[in-house]
Parts: sequence; C-alpha cells; structure tokens
Amino acid sequence: MAVVGLGLMGGSLALALRGHCRELAGADQNPEVLAQACRTGVIDRTIPFGEAPLADLLVLAAPVRAILAQLDGLARGPAPAGQPIVLDLGSTKAEIAAAMARLPAGYAPLGGHPMAGKEVSGLAHAEANLFLDKVFVLTPLVRTPPWALAVARQLVAAVGARPVELTPDRHDVLAAAASHLPYAAAVLLVRAAEGLDDDQVWDMAASGFRDTSRLAASDVTMMTDILLTNRASMVRALQGYRGQLDALTALLEAGDADALAAFLAAAAERRRGLFRP
Amino acid sequence: MAVVGLGLMGGSLALALRGHCRELAGADQNPEVLAQACRTGVIDRTIPFGEAPLADLLVLAAPVRAILAQLDGLARGPAPAGQPIVLDLGSTKAEIAAAMARLPAGYAPLGGHPMAGKEVSGLAHAEANLFLDKVFVLTPLVRTPPWALAVARQLVAAVGARPVELTPDRHDVLAAAASHLPYAAAVLLVRAAEGLDDDQVWDMAASGFRDTSRLAASDVTMMTDILLTNRASMVRALQGYRGQLDALTALLEAGDADALAAFLAAAAERRRGLFRP
Repeated sequence: MAVVGLGLMGGSLALALRGHCRELAGADQNPEVLAQACRTGVIDRTIPFGEAPLADLLVLAAPVRAILAQLDGLARGPAPAGQPIVLDLGSTKAEIAAAMARLPAGYAPLGGHPMAGKEVSGLAHAEANLFLDKVFVLTPLVRTPPWALAVARQLVAAVGARPVELTPDRHDVLAAAASHLPYAAAVLLVRAAEGLDDDQVWDMAASGFRDTSRLAASDVTMMTDILLTNRASMVRALQGYRGQLDALTALLEAGDADALAAFLAAAAERRRGLFRP
Repeated sequence: MAVVGLGLMGGSLALALRGHCRELAGADQNPEVLAQACRTGVIDRTIPFGEAPLADLLVLAAPVRAILAQLDGLARGPAPAGQPIVLDLGSTKAEIAAAMARLPAGYAPLGGHPMAGKEVSGLAHAEANLFLDKVFVLTPLVRTPPWALAVARQLVAAVGARPVELTPDRHDVLAAAASHLPYAAAVLLVRAAEGLDDDQVWDMAASGFRDTSRLAASDVTMMTDILLTNRASMVRALQGYRGQLDALTALLEAGDADALAAFLAAAAERRRGLFRP
C-alpha cells in the first residue's frame, strides 16, 4: 500500500492501518514531512512524490486539486501491472470520479471520503483513531470492479469506520450541506464580526462564537480546493442558506414572536435529535 | 441577596456566590425547580415569585421578556427601603436599561451579561464555575450609584469573571455579532440541511456540522426573547452576514481561486488568533 499526501488524513489512515497491510509506503511534497513520517514509523519507506508508485492499493490523500493533478499524471502514464486499486480521500467526489474514469484500464479506481477532520492540519495532528465510529463514504464508479470495492470496505472496517456508498454526484450535494456549508457559515460569521470594525467584539466572543466559528480556522488551500471542485452544489447550498437567512430576517422585522419561535423550534428539535450534548 | 429565575444562569450564579453573601434567597416560576434548589442547597430559602423580594441585591435571571415584566412590576410598586441593587443577567441590555430607568428612585439598578452559557438549560446543568475566566459585561445606567457598580464588580470578581463595562446600546450591537448571530447561523445551517429533504444528509454530519450547529439546540424561549429584544442590532448583523454570504457566492461563481483563498484566509487568520485549538 502507498499513501500519497501525509497530512492529517493520509497520516491518520497510515497510522490506523498499522498491522493491516504488508508494507506501507508514503510520499509527500514536503521532504520534512516525509522524513518525519519515516522517523516516527508512520510509513515503512518513502517513494518519490511525482512517480506512479507500484502498490496494490494507492491512496491519494492530498488536497482535491492536487489529487486531480495526480490522476491526470496517472492517466497520461502507461497501463499498470497487477490492477492496483486507486482510492482517494478527497472531500469532493464528482470531479475526481471524472478524472478516475480517464485512467488506463489497468487501474481499479474508486472514491472515498472519511467524514472526519479537525480544524488543524498536518501529520503532527494525525491519529490512529481519527476514523473510529465515523462515516466513511465510498463512491464506486461504473468501472470499479466488485473486488476492489470489497477491499475498500475492508479498509473502512480496519480503521473502525462505517461505510456509506453514494454516487459521486449525490455525495457532493450532501457534503455541500453537511460539511462545506458549515465551513462557509463559520467563515461568514468571523468576517461579519470583523466587519463591525470594533475590536471589543472579540471580548464578547465566548464559547458559542468559538464553536460556531471553529471551522473558519481550517486549512485554506484544502478548503479552496473543496469549494472550487464542488461549485454547483455549493452555490445551491448557499442559496438555500440565504433563503433561510431572509426568512429569519423577515420574521424578526415582523416581530411575530410565535412564528419566530416556531422557526427556531424546528431547528432546535432536529439538532437535539442529532447529537447528544 | 435574592435570585429570581433559577435556571442555568441564576442557578450557576447562586452556586458561584456560596460563601460570598449572608443569605441567598431564590424564586422560580416552576415550583419543582424551586424545591430542587432548596433541597440541593443552591439557595437558603425561597421567596414568592411574583413579589418584590426584600434583599440588598436582587438578581433577575429569567429570560429577557420575563425580566422586562418583572421590572414593570417593580416600577408599578412602592419605593423600596434601603436602596436595593437590581442587577439582571439578560442577554440584551437596551430594553432592560429602559425598563430599569422607570424604577422608583429607591432602587439602584444596573444591567449585567455574563458571556457564558451552554446549549442546555435549567438548574440541572448549573455549575459554580460557569463564569470562571469569562467576560461579565456590566451596563450601568446614568442613575446607577457608583457604590452599586462597585458591588456589582465585587460580584463579578467573586464568581471569577472579568468585568467589561459597556453602554447598553453598544452591548447590544456587539452581542448581536458575537453571540446572537452565531446562534442564528447555527439555526440557518440546520434548516438549510433539512431543506435538502434527504435524510442521508444527517449521516454525513460529522464534528464540523456538530460544532457549527451546536447553538441551534439552545432554549427557544430564551432565544426568541433575545432576538426580539435586540431586533434592530440583530437585523443589522444579519444584513452584514448576508453581505458576506453574497460576496462568497459571487467569488465561487466567478471561480477565481486566488480571490476566494484571500477571502477565506482573512477569516482563518482572525479565528486562529482568537482561540487556541
């Protein structure tokens, strides 16, 4: 097995798969990260970053636009021997599925998206149980052989996650609402507070602001890639969010306490059913 | 001292002031809560809910519109003996300050707002160190005697909080951006995901969605009161938020990676400076 990109996701996957694979090779564009991964035993050996590695299972764990570039590189290269599985961990799936569809026939590609993360990035924050009890979405293509999907499901089980199979397009619609919109909401919140141009607003920011804005500290390169490779679904999600925002503003302007309370109660009821405090 | 409203805030204040006051009386509209507060030693004795209690320091810790009704009750009553301090813990301050200004001259009123909370409410969640190291806003009126403000500052110090003095109007502008807008963003997020009408979206909701939406589970009565008694500032805050939302949507539609990254990076930088991960 080879992992390309040893950040939070790739590093955590490598740690979680210790003992589950014969040999774990790794690549990273940052030589210091790669050296650290070797030194700390996250990987068994290094492979060159740009080269298509020889592995039974190749995991692409860089930001989405880097994954797209790596898939383009593989597509321009020769057909591989031994039908290696190519699994990516990118947060958007439709553009990656389209790039995977262009791979030579010798590859067995499919998409993956573990619904786990932190607002901090990098190998230093990787941990073996990042995926424990989390949803791990798999997005097989039409060309994905059943045996490759079975191996991917074994990988999901090995890291302690729960597999959910979706088409790449449906994944992107759902991920926009469940994952990328929360990030956007956090960014907008910080920027709106900044827009007051009154530094005392930060004195007033307590645990509510802290949690609601947490995702705004996410890695900007990663999030730029995600938003740009999920533009259509994300624009629709932002439009849905704006519709709710306009409805709330109208309720406030009207000052109708009962209608406002009903609007808020629907969200409170749903949220309380989702997570335990 | 008397605390009217023994929920999360009033109960926590009572617990935090143990040993700092001679006697702590309490009132609550819910007789079961009141009995529980007595039984567990949160208060020393009960006082009738509707009556103006005889106390050196009267703390009003109900939802904002209930505080307004209590202040109206005191305003219609006789002038008290001994110049009791009336301090409220409501999350909006301008309407409460206006109601306090109408109290008989015998009262020494001022507003307070501890910037601490949870998405769960009620005496069962109260804790003595809820206010520890938190900002506790004090909003004195023109009529507030300096000695009453000094007592309030002693109270803030006794519960381990950090006092910040603001005018009621400035408090409401800042609280809209720092506290009420995060709640609104959380509600809108849950409602936008609900709007997809696809239950699998909840499978995809991981820690990012969980934290960003946490406040949506807040007590609806409390939040309805807050939004309705801070309408003008809240509508302005929502308009500022909408401006940011429209800017993000336009950047996405344009697909300009550098401009999008700069928009996101400004929020990331600010957020990383505010709280440690």
